Amino acid sequence: MSSERSEGSPSPETNPATALAWVLVDELARCGLREAVIAPGSRSTPLALALAADGRIRLHVRIDERSASFLALGLARRQGHPVAVVCTSGTAAANFHPAVLESDRSGVPLLVLTADRPPELRDTGANQTVDQLGLYGGAVRWFSEVGVPEAVPGMVAYWRSLAARAWAQARGRVAGPVHLNVAFREPLLPGTHGPQPDSWPEPLAGREDGKPWLLVHEEPNQAGALTLPEVERGVIVCGDGDYDPEPYLELSAATGWPLLAEPTSNARRDPRLALSAYRYLLGHPGFIRQNRPDVVVTVGRCGLSRELLAFLRTARRHVAVGNPEDVRRLADPVRTATDVVSAVVAPGGCDPDSAWSRSWRRADAHARQALDEVLDTAEPSEPRLARDLAAALPAGSLLTVGASMPIRDLDAAMYPRTGLRLLGNRGVSGIDGTVSTALGAALAHQAAGGGPAAALVGDLALLHDQNGLIRGPEEPDVDLCLVVVNNDGGGIFSELEQASHPDFERLFGTPHGVSPERVAQMAGIEYTLLEEPEDLPKHVVGSGVRLLEFRTRRAASAEVRRRLRAAVQEAVG
Amino acid sequence: MSSERSEGSPSPETNPATALAWVLVDELARCGLREAVIAPGSRSTPLALALAADGRIRLHVRIDERSASFLALGLARRQGHPVAVVCTSGTAAANFHPAVLESDRSGVPLLVLTADRPPELRDTGANQTVDQLGLYGGAVRWFSEVGVPEAVPGMVAYWRSLAARAWAQARGRVAGPVHLNVAFREPLLPGTHGPQPDSWPEPLAGREDGKPWLLVHEEPNQAGALTLPEVERGVIVCGDGDYDPEPYLELSAATGWPLLAEPTSNARRDPRLALSAYRYLLGHPGFIRQNRPDVVVTVGRCGLSRELLAFLRTARRHVAVGNPEDVRRLADPVRTATDVVSAVVAPGGCDPDSAWSRSWRRADAHARQALDEVLDTAEPSEPRLARDLAAALPAGSLLTVGASMPIRDLDAAMYPRTGLRLLGNRGVSGIDGTVSTALGAALAHQAAGGGPAAALVGDLALLHDQNGLIRGPEEPDVDLCLVVVNNDGGGIFSELEQASHPDFERLFGTPHGVSPERVAQMAGIEYTLLEEPEDLPKHVVGSGVRLLEFRTRRAASAEVRRRLRAAVQEAVG
Repeated sequence: MSSERSEGSPSPETNPATALAWVLVDELARCGLREAVIAPGSRSTPLALALAADGRIRLHVRIDERSASFLALGLARRQGHPVAVVCTSGTAAANFHPAVLESDRSGVPLLVLTADRPPELRDTGANQTVDQLGLYGGAVRWFSEVGVPEAVPGMVAYWRSLAARAWAQARGRVAGPVHLNVAFREPLLPGTHGPQPDSWPEPLAGREDGKPWLLVHEEPNQAGALTLPEVERGVIVCGDGDYDPEPYLELSAATGWPLLAEPTSNARRDPRLALSAYRYLLGHPGFIRQNRPDVVVTVGRCGLSRELLAFLRTARRHVAVGNPEDVRRLADPVRTATDVVSAVVAPGGCDPDSAWSRSWRRADAHARQALDEVLDTAEPSEPRLARDLAAALPAGSLLTVGASMPIRDLDAAMYPRTGLRLLGNRGVSGIDGTVSTALGAALAHQAAGGGPAAALVGDLALLHDQNGLIRGPEEPDVDLCLVVVNNDGGGIFSELEQASHPDFERLFGTPHGVSPERVAQMAGIEYTLLEEPEDLPKHVVGSGVRLLEFRTRRAASAEVRRRLRAAVQEAVG
Repeated sequence: MSSERSEGSPSPETNPATALAWVLVDELARCGLREAVIAPGSRSTPLALALAADGRIRLHVRIDERSASFLALGLARRQGHPVAVVCTSGTAAANFHPAVLESDRSGVPLLVLTADRPPELRDTGANQTVDQLGLYGGAVRWFSEVGVPEAVPGMVAYWRSLAARAWAQARGRVAGPVHLNVAFREPLLPGTHGPQPDSWPEPLAGREDGKPWLLVHEEPNQAGALTLPEVERGVIVCGDGDYDPEPYLELSAATGWPLLAEPTSNARRDPRLALSAYRYLLGHPGFIRQNRPDVVVTVGRCGLSRELLAFLRTARRHVAVGNPEDVRRLADPVRTATDVVSAVVAPGGCDPDSAWSRSWRRADAHARQALDEVLDTAEPSEPRLARDLAAALPAGSLLTVGASMPIRDLDAAMYPRTGLRLLGNRGVSGIDGTVSTALGAALAHQAAGGGPAAALVGDLALLHDQNGLIRGPEEPDVDLCLVVVNNDGGGIFSELEQASHPDFERLFGTPHGVSPERVAQMAGIEYTLLEEPEDLPKHVVGSGVRLLEFRTRRAASAEVRRRLRAAVQEAVG
């Protein structure tokens, strides 16, 4: 027996539900499972008890399944390994659906373990019973109906193999969610309740050395890297994704091709390479006319702005770095890609200080200066807050960015910097689950020895997932500063054509009148009103979960964004 | 043109998105659509604008799609007609999934209209884009991918026929959810944005007399009613469901068979027929041994208590009244049904005052007295609150009951009465969406001229759907008293075997420390602490949405429930 084994190995009189749950959890822990989230329920009792008893796994309990699943997503997104999320049967499992979709589209490994009733209790009107088979459709890498556990020989090998496969499938080259539906028949508790075999027909333990039942030896990626053409007029676009951005910084340095880095690419590091005002350059018709690229290399999921989408259409060749084994869902937002490849090699003989390179860098410097002048002189605005927050966080920090305006403001205004890890739910870009995603990411960040964590979210994202703030007294501690941009409604719509419609306020603006301070009081967390953006640095670092409200007006922010575009038009000329 | 037509019929320069949305909404309104709920978004703009412009439809806007869909469910549950719920693309649509499952299992008609991106924007990493085709699997009566609207001849007949079919399918004999996925290509707004045909190729208007495009003439139900056997020892169990309970009261009166009526059957009306302490009789081994039925007739979804499930197993014959056209999911929780039939006819020649009948009624009277003595002398408890709330509401009231303990306490303690409409999400019995369901039901109840509305929910159900309380300033008024039983966690688990486990508090009890008063402050609604149950009558009726908190201790309530069982054991002897 390995010393890694959990203390609470079941006694010989174990019932099948307890045996299955204990074996699944033990095997997943051997594979590397370190974090699990559960929502309370009765049918899931065997899994909850097995997880709670395993010293290798840190457990998190949340009462709202939707928040629980996004917490798991945030943990997995930062950690990079599968995280388990467990619920009882019925609508509980459907509450995981939004996070499963995000996990699918952003390739975050998630092990979804739904408890179910056994077949004889299905379709009879029994409580909390729905058809959970294939509940998430094609969004999961694998769905398995585990079957009702029984004390027959061969089950231990089955359960251990199943767990090891689920782990490997979730974190494979096409990482994502795996769904195991686990039907439990009563008794659900260990001990002397109900019928149980006198002794289990075979040892429950796994491999003797504490290793996983099945080791999946991953082949090195065989796909050949593409050597890029030797052209002057190249552009690199780094979009969202959990990839190492360094090769693209090196590519930019070697070729002089400008690097356009969306925030959650984590490639906006070096101001000599990444153009921080690129969105406005791409929105400048004269500049774009004169700067048509021969090749654009895109990496990850890009396409935050309409300006970028229009720019992609101007490229003569578009090399998309992605997963050639998963072209079904290649990120290629305007269908311009000419090549998909897993890696690229810089061409020889490029001049890193070409006229093309200088033209972009010069324009970016002018644009950046014009932006900052507007941001620093206009009334404190949402884009300015985004810029200053990303700049204020100390090295080693994590910043989770909400969908809708926060990610766009950050894209528009963030300075290049190192020492900051950025992430967001960019797979589907929903505003749901943002608070929990940020909490999960912060928990994983700090468990890995990382520093402070912050999140930039709008008031609607805060409210949508305010349940993410509700935590019991025994939950693991975490430090997170939730910076809430409060404009009492949906700011993004003020940027769209809808803004002119007479029914705009009710249908799109959706003012709600809920004060973030009241949300903080509901959840029992510290609250601060940020009066001056200059005070940001002193508020963003601290302990525990804190809410920092920044009040803005939607119309005023839209006006600042209009002025930013105008200022760049003039500065770039 | 019918005078019923909406004012805002599109101009001849209408674009396809606007045309489709306008035609769908107009046709649904002709079919009878009167309530619609939308969650804000961009892709769904054409539907939102068409709904807002139609004077026949009352619109509700909610920022959390999960709450929005349960609001629609509550409206439809009380109203009995399909209600539309609309969202934008992406995870938004998955947030509807729990309500869709409840709609499926409880047969509530729901029209789910999800906006989608057109095919060319799918699988490209575009924002808020997932595979929405068949998103809810087998839970919907019908899924239709509507297709991207185009200005070609024949579309108007297609769209109108589609809407009329969707309406009929949702409210058919096997009522439930219908999902139309509507992909819109830009422009999304009416008017002069983007390319548009100079004139539409055919009239957009529907049938000239304002009638639906397709009238579905329902056949009278041909299934023969079953004449029940002429036996003395019969029992009638009325479970949850939207059916007329009168025939079963009449059956009970004609036969003397005791009527065991779960609260949301709305059959617990006449104290001479419905046994209000039946749960304790069924839990009394001696009584059950002596009172084995020859026939049990069950109606709707029954099975709230383990006692009832065990009792069903004792019946020699079990006639289940249900839908013979939908036996897939016949409510038959312990698989004892011997016959399924759409209606029953009372046998001739039964003595309504048989020894059997008297035995049950006498035992129930003794049990009822014993229950009330405990309830009135013990510290104010959860079952007492349930009893007194159902009794205190004036005639014409609506009471929505939450899953978990509220419905069980009501089942255990409610007196028979008339003039009260009870409902709850008993299809799947989740605690999610309870606040919104109650609000939706109250809105429909009061729109139909009904009186006061109340809801009985636990603290976890309140928190799970506290977003249901967030409403903008232009939303329709409603009166609802939310009676919140606050025991700081999951009370139901204290009734289960889990209660003895050392990890109980964290895994099952899940104390959260959130005060309902803070929730009320967050949402800006009136709050009252109910100090004495005697004060219930003066608090339950009022205007607007109000929260009435009743504080209990989980252990104390479990103890009262234990004493109730013991008292009946003794009284029935």
